Amino acid sequence: MNEEKKVLGILGGMGPLATVDLYKKIVLLTAAENDNAHIHTLIDSDTDIADRTAAILSGGKDPLPELLKARDNLVRAGAECLIMPCNTAHYFLEPLREGCPVPFLSMLDAAAEAAAVKYPGKTGVILATRGTLATGLYGRTLEKHGVPFFEPSEEEKDVLMHLIYDIVKASRPLGEGIPLFRELLRGLKKRGADYFVLGCTELPILAMEVPQEGPFIDATLELARAAIRACGYAVEERDVKP
Amino acid sequence: MNEEKKVLGILGGMGPLATVDLYKKIVLLTAAENDNAHIHTLIDSDTDIADRTAAILSGGKDPLPELLKARDNLVRAGAECLIMPCNTAHYFLEPLREGCPVPFLSMLDAAAEAAAVKYPGKTGVILATRGTLATGLYGRTLEKHGVPFFEPSEEEKDVLMHLIYDIVKASRPLGEGIPLFRELLRGLKKRGADYFVLGCTELPILAMEVPQEGPFIDATLELARAAIRACGYAVEERDVKP
Repeated sequence: MNEEKKVLGILGGMGPLATVDLYKKIVLLTAAENDNAHIHTLIDSDTDIADRTAAILSGGKDPLPELLKARDNLVRAGAECLIMPCNTAHYFLEPLREGCPVPFLSMLDAAAEAAAVKYPGKTGVILATRGTLATGLYGRTLEKHGVPFFEPSEEEKDVLMHLIYDIVKASRPLGEGIPLFRELLRGLKKRGADYFVLGCTELPILAMEVPQEGPFIDATLELARAAIRACGYAVEERDVKP
Repeated sequence: MNEEKKVLGILGGMGPLATVDLYKKIVLLTAAENDNAHIHTLIDSDTDIADRTAAILSGGKDPLPELLKARDNLVRAGAECLIMPCNTAHYFLEPLREGCPVPFLSMLDAAAEAAAVKYPGKTGVILATRGTLATGLYGRTLEKHGVPFFEPSEEEKDVLMHLIYDIVKASRPLGEGIPLFRELLRGLKKRGADYFVLGCTELPILAMEVPQEGPFIDATLELARAAIRACGYAVEERDVKP
């Protein structure tokens, strides 16, 4: 065992398919020739975490106690670096970092850094839940990295919420949401979007069905890359869709 | 929380992509309308577990101590039912069940039961690592369920080992292995195979690229179904490839 290599902890379950998507991206992007060269990864796909958007927007049950419980469970089990495949849950990142004995990476920072590097001067649009958008967290993170952006209209937010909750989180066949998603992306391009920041972990799952409608900044993919590096492994330069 | 619902623990990392594949199948096959209706799942994708085939066939490092460590880590973290997405590792299932305070399901039993139900009287062929085949475990499990079967020839085993180790476990593009895999399957059909038991967790990942070459019994898929039921959830009747 290389002393500098860290055990990765994934605070997941928000939703479960997004957790699958992140871990798959980590495995595919880790430069490794056999099982033992991969990152030792612990996942708590804790499906008892209350809905983040409902908590932020409408006084729903606070997810923080369960988030802290899952965080502590991962650290106790041996995690030395933590990540969380849910953009909306990053509203709670600061309290999760407080008293945490290991680094807790930010998915939003990973996405914003990638946007700044890949599309300098271009205008992105943030595709996310109403909860994430209402917090203004993504906007502030993009501003910090000097990335021009705009947000979807109220009507477009409705479409996004439908796709995220009624299709992906409900494990419906993705094909049911594709025509609506395509129409949304084309409309946003007409309104000036040069590329799309997939700021909800359910969206890359849809976007991989329509790669030609991009380009996309996949926050899940950028978090995977950041986590591999933070754990002391090399990132394989490979095309992982979207 | 329903009192009868159990937290699932996945003893993974053998290999990491197979762990992704199993957890994805569990999520897709769980009848659930939102994040909170899914199974709370803990995963230890422990990439320090020594190669199972090398240990069985050629006196390689014993994987059992690390397997027991991961098992205990999962139970300590809250797992109430355990599964292990690696057919070869089932050679160590009995010592893993000893002293284990929670049920530890068998992937081989899940696959054999499915074969008996879906293809009664038909002849299956076991596609697995040399380690799994050498233990005779699959054969005995299929016999227990009255399933006629045969094993690949020495030459065919070489092809399987190449596909498993040099393509899937090495995270090579799957396309590199497809022509060889297709040729292998067609040859086995000519020799009397009515269907293929995918008795290595890396093989469904290849088989999903060539669904028309089946039919397949996917041990990973059958284990996913068994785990969902064992944790007190309903299985969605849905087509998950292969």
